[in-house]
Amino acid sequence: MPEAASAPVVPAAQDGPAAVGDSEFDRDTALSRRAPGVYDIDLSPGWTIAGAVNGGYLLAVLGRALADALPHPDPFTVSAHYLTASQPGPAVVRTDVVRTGRTLSTGQASLFQYDEDGREVERIRVLASYGDLDALPDDVRTAARPPAIPAMEQCLGSQDGPSPMAGSSAIADRLTLKLDPATLGWALGTPSGKGEMRAWFGLADGRDADPLSLLLAVDALPPTAFELGLKGWVPTVELTVHVRCRPAPGPLRVSIATRNLAGGFLEEDAEVWDSADRLVAQSRQLARVRLG
Amino acid sequence: MPEAASAPVVPAAQDGPAAVGDSEFDRDTALSRRAPGVYDIDLSPGWTIAGAVNGGYLLAVLGRALADALPHPDPFTVSAHYLTASQPGPAVVRTDVVRTGRTLSTGQASLFQYDEDGREVERIRVLASYGDLDALPDDVRTAARPPAIPAMEQCLGSQDGPSPMAGSSAIADRLTLKLDPATLGWALGTPSGKGEMRAWFGLADGRDADPLSLLLAVDALPPTAFELGLKGWVPTVELTVHVRCRPAPGPLRVSIATRNLAGGFLEEDAEVWDSADRLVAQSRQLARVRLG
Repeated sequence: MPEAASAPVVPAAQDGPAAVGDSEFDRDTALSRRAPGVYDIDLSPGWTIAGAVNGGYLLAVLGRALADALPHPDPFTVSAHYLTASQPGPAVVRTDVVRTGRTLSTGQASLFQYDEDGREVERIRVLASYGDLDALPDDVRTAARPPAIPAMEQCLGSQDGPSPMAGSSAIADRLTLKLDPATLGWALGTPSGKGEMRAWFGLADGRDADPLSLLLAVDALPPTAFELGLKGWVPTVELTVHVRCRPAPGPLRVSIATRNLAGGFLEEDAEVWDSADRLVAQSRQLARVRLG
Repeated sequence: MPEAASAPVVPAAQDGPAAVGDSEFDRDTALSRRAPGVYDIDLSPGWTIAGAVNGGYLLAVLGRALADALPHPDPFTVSAHYLTASQPGPAVVRTDVVRTGRTLSTGQASLFQYDEDGREVERIRVLASYGDLDALPDDVRTAARPPAIPAMEQCLGSQDGPSPMAGSSAIADRLTLKLDPATLGWALGTPSGKGEMRAWFGLADGRDADPLSLLLAVDALPPTAFELGLKGWVPTVELTVHVRCRPAPGPLRVSIATRNLAGGFLEEDAEVWDSADRLVAQSRQLARVRLG
């Protein structure tokens, strides 16, 4: 809204929820196409946790580039390997079309930033297969059931107390994250010992979920490691998301579980459910932990 | 053993189990390095199901190429996107070192075959991060428990009855696969309706498991779709494996579960447990189903 002299600096909540395509998330994942398959972006400091750019936000940036590069619109499965830690600031995304099929197409994308000498340093590389969620049959034979999570009013967000996370957490202002009190023991110094984390998830400006924001949702909760009594940074080595259904409007429920913490690594399995009780995304990541 | 005139054509079981490095699996995944990062292989017809080359075998071929190309020996996480169906016969693998770090290195590999005009056609592309399993701390805080599966003697293999699979299934001769009768209803025309498959897994010539053969193990069972009442081919779109621990000698237990069958796709989550009750590998794949 730069042309309106009276435009508010912060999206005004009183104007109603932000629309898909015109929201903080959309602006901060928007890319500028420099050449075919080459995109520039300024990584926003708004999606950082303790100074590090959130891995789900990066995945959404790469997902948007591939949606432009591939003939199919929706990420069906995206596999990301995280190489070096991203910083807010300029980045370039390079995409490569691997295969184009009738119902699926596959692409590759890498995000680079620059070292002090201006050389490109690769941050993250993804392989992804895209399709058209709207072209899928309606058939649902799932045995999966939505996670047991209390009503949103009984869950707790960053507005409900001082942040238990060390360092600044800009992303907290961009999300409406309401955690199940049963998975909040870590914040009170009494982690449950179970590798579970559950939350209601939304974008703070009210933008509804779409396949791209699901890539953010799967990596936006505090790490399950906190409930296992571990502290500190849990960097992602690899994360794969499956988007299974276009999400209905309304808040999402995200449930994350860790079964196996061993040898300094753990997996995090996430499920994302929409307001229509559909399982809209599944993800698994391998992450490193510091054993205390 | 080509120099021994009396060498048996088939590895002789009476000579004891095949050793790691000298087994059917090792010979059929062995690559010939043509140039740095370029490897030739003749894909064996011995690992096919109804004429199609098994996806886990292909993953092991790519995994072996990357173990040669990268400075670290063991696959920690391998993400594969399957592009076109592989056939037995000549193939070339091209690897690319993405990043080399102290404890992890990341590489990319593609397997190509040839069309009628001799042009390369890409079959499968992987991103993988490798490390050294022996360098990991012994710390285990896992909450995961081994699958409930009957003793091997109570489980059923291809020797225990006519194959319920249509078409030839050469891979059945290479594996010792003993299925939990509770997940064999499909073979009797009475699928359970639960998306579960469990089996004891070994290589038929007695070769012990290693990280490379775990890449095979996660994709060697009949599809869970059969127990969901579906028939026919369930092609993998994407498969990611995490190898979490070097497997102990002895048979493996593999447990596969599907929670979400919807829109013509399903996920298969596999766990592989070794004889020391360690969770040695986890995988998830997205596969397409024909809805009947």
